[in-house]
Amino acid sequence: MITEKSLGIAVKNINRAAPDTIARLERLGAATVHEAQKRIGQLKPYLRPIYEGSRIAGSAVTVLAQPGDNWMLHVAMELCQPGDILVVGVTTECNDGFFGDLLATSALSKGVKGLVIDGGVRDVRDLKAMQFPVWSKAVSIRGTVKNTLGSVNVPIVCGGQIIHPGDVVVADDDGICVVAIENAEETAKAGEAREANEAMKRKEFEKGVLGLDIYKMRERLKEAGLKYVERLEDIEKGALS
Amino acid sequence: MITEKSLGIAVKNINRAAPDTIARLERLGAATVHEAQKRIGQLKPYLRPIYEGSRIAGSAVTVLAQPGDNWMLHVAMELCQPGDILVVGVTTECNDGFFGDLLATSALSKGVKGLVIDGGVRDVRDLKAMQFPVWSKAVSIRGTVKNTLGSVNVPIVCGGQIIHPGDVVVADDDGICVVAIENAEETAKAGEAREANEAMKRKEFEKGVLGLDIYKMRERLKEAGLKYVERLEDIEKGALS
Amino acid sequence: MITEKSLGIAVKNINRAAPDTIARLERLGAATVHEAQKRIGQLKPYLRPIYEGSRIAGSAVTVLAQPGDNWMLHVAMELCQPGDILVVGVTTECNDGFFGDLLATSALSKGVKGLVIDGGVRDVRDLKAMQFPVWSKAVSIRGTVKNTLGSVNVPIVCGGQIIHPGDVVVADDDGICVVAIENAEETAKAGEAREANEAMKRKEFEKGVLGLDIYKMRERLKEAGLKYVERLEDIEKGALS
Amino acid sequence: MITEKSLGIAVKNINRAAPDTIARLERLGAATVHEAQKRIGQLKPYLRPIYEGSRIAGSAVTVLAQPGDNWMLHVAMELCQPGDILVVGVTTECNDGFFGDLLATSALSKGVKGLVIDGGVRDVRDLKAMQFPVWSKAVSIRGTVKNTLGSVNVPIVCGGQIIHPGDVVVADDDGICVVAIENAEETAKAGEAREANEAMKRKEFEKGVLGLDIYKMRERLKEAGLKYVERLEDIEKGALS
Amino acid sequence: MITEKSLGIAVKNINRAAPDTIARLERLGAATVHEAQKRIGQLKPYLRPIYEGSRIAGSAVTVLAQPGDNWMLHVAMELCQPGDILVVGVTTECNDGFFGDLLATSALSKGVKGLVIDGGVRDVRDLKAMQFPVWSKAVSIRGTVKNTLGSVNVPIVCGGQIIHPGDVVVADDDGICVVAIENAEETAKAGEAREANEAMKRKEFEKGVLGLDIYKMRERLKEAGLKYVERLEDIEKGALS
Amino acid sequence: MITEKSLGIAVKNINRAAPDTIARLERLGAATVHEAQKRIGQLKPYLRPIYEGSRIAGSAVTVLAQPGDNWMLHVAMELCQPGDILVVGVTTECNDGFFGDLLATSALSKGVKGLVIDGGVRDVRDLKAMQFPVWSKAVSIRGTVKNTLGSVNVPIVCGGQIIHPGDVVVADDDGICVVAIENAEETAKAGEAREANEAMKRKEFEKGVLGLDIYKMRERLKEAGLKYVERLEDIEKGALS
Repeated sequence: MITEKSLGIAVKNINRAAPDTIARLERLGAATVHEAQKRIGQLKPYLRPIYEGSRIAGSAVTVLAQPGDNWMLHVAMELCQPGDILVVGVTTECNDGFFGDLLATSALSKGVKGLVIDGGVRDVRDLKAMQFPVWSKAVSIRGTVKNTLGSVNVPIVCGGQIIHPGDVVVADDDGICVVAIENAEETAKAGEAREANEAMKRKEFEKGVLGLDIYKMRERLKEAGLKYVERLEDIEKGALS
Repeated sequence: MITEKSLGIAVKNINRAAPDTIARLERLGAATVHEAQKRIGQLKPYLRPIYEGSRIAGSAVTVLAQPGDNWMLHVAMELCQPGDILVVGVTTECNDGFFGDLLATSALSKGVKGLVIDGGVRDVRDLKAMQFPVWSKAVSIRGTVKNTLGSVNVPIVCGGQIIHPGDVVVADDDGICVVAIENAEETAKAGEAREANEAMKRKEFEKGVLGLDIYKMRERLKEAGLKYVERLEDIEKGALS
Repeated sequence: MITEKSLGIAVKNINRAAPDTIARLERLGAATVHEAQKRIGQLKPYLRPIYEGSRIAGSAVTVLAQPGDNWMLHVAMELCQPGDILVVGVTTECNDGFFGDLLATSALSKGVKGLVIDGGVRDVRDLKAMQFPVWSKAVSIRGTVKNTLGSVNVPIVCGGQIIHPGDVVVADDDGICVVAIENAEETAKAGEAREANEAMKRKEFEKGVLGLDIYKMRERLKEAGLKYVERLEDIEKGALS
Repeated sequence: MITEKSLGIAVKNINRAAPDTIARLERLGAATVHEAQKRIGQLKPYLRPIYEGSRIAGSAVTVLAQPGDNWMLHVAMELCQPGDILVVGVTTECNDGFFGDLLATSALSKGVKGLVIDGGVRDVRDLKAMQFPVWSKAVSIRGTVKNTLGSVNVPIVCGGQIIHPGDVVVADDDGICVVAIENAEETAKAGEAREANEAMKRKEFEKGVLGLDIYKMRERLKEAGLKYVERLEDIEKGALS
Repeated sequence: MITEKSLGIAVKNINRAAPDTIARLERLGAATVHEAQKRIGQLKPYLRPIYEGSRIAGSAVTVLAQPGDNWMLHVAMELCQPGDILVVGVTTECNDGFFGDLLATSALSKGVKGLVIDGGVRDVRDLKAMQFPVWSKAVSIRGTVKNTLGSVNVPIVCGGQIIHPGDVVVADDDGICVVAIENAEETAKAGEAREANEAMKRKEFEKGVLGLDIYKMRERLKEAGLKYVERLEDIEKGALS
Repeated sequence: MITEKSLGIAVKNINRAAPDTIARLERLGAATVHEAQKRIGQLKPYLRPIYEGSRIAGSAVTVLAQPGDNWMLHVAMELCQPGDILVVGVTTECNDGFFGDLLATSALSKGVKGLVIDGGVRDVRDLKAMQFPVWSKAVSIRGTVKNTLGSVNVPIVCGGQIIHPGDVVVADDDGICVVAIENAEETAKAGEAREANEAMKRKEFEKGVLGLDIYKMRERLKEAGLKYVERLEDIEKGALS
């Protein structure tokens, strides 16, 4: 949890994964990265992109915001480096529009790649026009104030997932996956291996070979007790036994 | 309900409506088919297309899947014929990504027209690029395992509606309607009659004729007690009586 | 609340804001108008556009509909003037498709600019093709009947907000804001001032100046107690004190 | 809608229905009152009692609160009279705990009968012990601040319903119904007539007479086309025609 | 799905499981029955009891109701026998109060044991006083009309589950499970065996023996790769390898 | 986030706050503790007690469970000490019944005080009879398997909040608050001071003194611009200016 010690704190420096590793994770996309990481790191699927077609990966600059208050987003902006992604948790459920075209302009000028926020945003037409990708819980015209401290670059919860500052965040139309720095390189490798493997399988599928045969499932299905019958009525008639 | 008898069963052969009837239902679309069928057969509106602009109709190959497990989708694929639609119910609420680009490749190679699933899917950018339409409850990067038996081509619940194998499923941007084989032909006819009737009305509406006159509502409204007043204040002033 | 007195009533004449004022509010958009009006007037964000890219403002012709019944929409249509927006509340939560392509054809022929409805609509592909913008709670193939009286041009609740007939409604991809006639002119002015101010700030942001400096936040943050630390570990180590 | 004019206003005096009428509405309960008023006035069912067994009616002292801010509840308390009910709407969705045991102590000392709030409350164990009934959207430990003005005794939205100051609110385990002062007496009468009628019917039902006969439905069902068959299989076999 | 053929039909006679079997299933309760039936038959957990402490099992008399219309409940009542349970599905999502104290009086006079409804009910205080148990999706004061035909004793969907007329429904504070007649006897037996087994385990647990030992999990956990470390810091330090 | 390193790990030893401090936090209750800790530490209000009237505080033994799998709960049980509270997060949203009467028997035999789970439980009637308090997201008859590793005593997310092993969890009818060990003593003190302060205020409130006077709000309200008017109509008439 956020303790009193960590509230009202902005941490200036964070570790980041190697740019090349981040680039490889970005190319793989959120679903493949999630699989490559053995199915950990998913942010809840209620976080959705405000427009389709983006795929980004970057180092998380984390923001803990108070409900209806985007003050800490301004604090965070100064601490961002090109390639970073702003990841925002809120202390209490709040769908207000914490972020709009002005903050996006600022973010773009700093080289920030996008925003993941457990709250709302606005000016979505402008954000799309600027090609600044956002994953959010809501779109809302209701703006926020700048009154109460939160924190920057402390561990937060976003989309039901703990995010540490510097974690690699991978986001696309399928959703969002987070990867710890120390897992990043090995996850990139595992993802590329998976991708190569899937490319081969895709060719088989294109030829019309079934998953049943590609994955050699027939025997296991039989062992598990799967029974084939000719027609639905046969179940009733006991044609199974 | 699914009984123990019908769990772990794959039914090989199902009846299908006549291809021409299915084509006519497809052209009519889900909303018109639903009206033509006297407002039965709607799947709940939380099932939404992953991309806009598709309209399909086909015979339901039904799949009962376990949560987090897409094994039976592979079993179902073998039993599909060109023009079929995979319709998936899940034994317990689950938003995981049961279906992605590999299964879509397999489905396209079998001539399957689309997927309706009471769960989640992923690789939505690829599915859109492949033009493989999907109606789902969620988009999720979380993949599934292949461990526990469900069933194929038994009656299932999807979107709060009982779907029998072979039922005609009509899906578009408005939602999804299911039609029993024995109702298909007569529903197509009723839908076409309705469409012709609506075409005439549309011309009237375009000319500026009001629904009040087209549908001859004025008399019925009066009987029902509708009162017109000049201004809102008149209600307070008792100008009604 | 709607009293028995106001149920079954259609009010013929409503006041409307000046067309020029409405045009200016439209240009500003929902989020700016909401700010300019000191954050009042937001309709709940669950009302979403059925397609992206529209921005409209107009005088509300209000409709109180019964669940599953769109009779009063026909009554309302006759009372609409060019530039009006239909705003529909429903007496009980209902996601049925109250409005489709025929009613949209009628609305367009009357010069109605769009629809905001606390319920569902259908024929969304057609509505998009016709460029008739709609903000709704749901999309549903289930049509409605014409049996039970509601009211037209009485105060209603839509999206959790009281809407009076004649209120100016501003809707776009960010959501919907309502402005009372007597506030409209001053809100337009305040919005334009805000916009001018934001244009200046945008230039600063584009140059890379931070919000911290543009808004002169550094001093206030310090007063509020914000502490900067070099690294996350420093929090633990008590480097703060 | 709440206009700028009506924000930041506390209205001191409101009209109230006759105490005897309120007492009669209380005895009838929310469901009967709703029926007696021809099914208008229901607050949405997501508002639930924090404990079971209360039934109250009283004059609404309305409060428009800001999210996370209960300042106006204190302002309202001064304006309450014995027998009143506090009814609170919030400008933006917020589940924080606006009300707890201290405010309940204050309310009881003023003779306030209960609270209906489109937000959260806390100290529910104490409130139950004090027998101060509350209908709320949530229970939450998160308290509120006292920073931003709302209004008292202006029209608000609570539970999706417009509430005017002085409206009679009837609340029990079934939910909440609001009655305008000018409807109160006639609604009480209609409710009592309904109750007498139901008492007679209850005796019939207790004797085992069916609703089909009490309400003389058999003929209407037949006209509507209801068909009886002996067994489910008969439907398939066409035994209907 | 409900076809046009099966809409507007009331089936007079249904098969029922043996009373003794039903009594045994009732004693076991919903959770044990669900396990005994290999985890099939659960109705979705959003169906909750209106008061605590009931446990019933009985033969389902199924009702397909239209939204806001309880006509078919009256038709169903005539077809109920002592020990039956009314199970109601609705063609479209609707939380209105379909059932109250009068219908409960009628049901009790017919020996009906309770109600499971995919909608709302009212008069919950009376229903509790009468000890007529109900599992519902909502409590609502909004009553229903008697206008549109549905069906009685056809297969329906309730709580996301297909219910056939005559299925045994078991409901208690944990939720609801449905058992097909042909599975009822064997499920009762399996449940009793399970219960005996659990009674033995409960004694072990009471003595303080751990599930790890009772279920002999230690070896399997080790094989699965579970690693014990002394302290959280050891994970960071690589004390694992 | 949970990294691959921390999945499949059970940490044997955790730090715990002083028993006396925990006892004092328990007496204060969740709402007071939350205030005393400056409004941090709330778990989301969707976690509700399965029965009313409990109030517990204890050291969190954290469990990261897989969806539909309660294996790690058994692992955790061995690591619990008297006075601990089991706090369970799940890697993916899942409402299954992870915990029932057998595990509760085990927990009671170990002196565990209660359970907080971001999922479902069952046997709630038994749990109430045993007086084993549980806060959960759902009640569900669907049991779980014991197949896939999670972790014990690593940081988890439960109710949208990061929970570290050993954190003090305070739960009652109002909800749940978590306190870090290093904050526990000072939070207990602050809570007791707050309680003393509230006791004094309660006496004032009982006497009928208003919050306006107790908190000396009148001046601040005036400064904020609050205007009193005699009657609602005065707002319209401009009696304000």
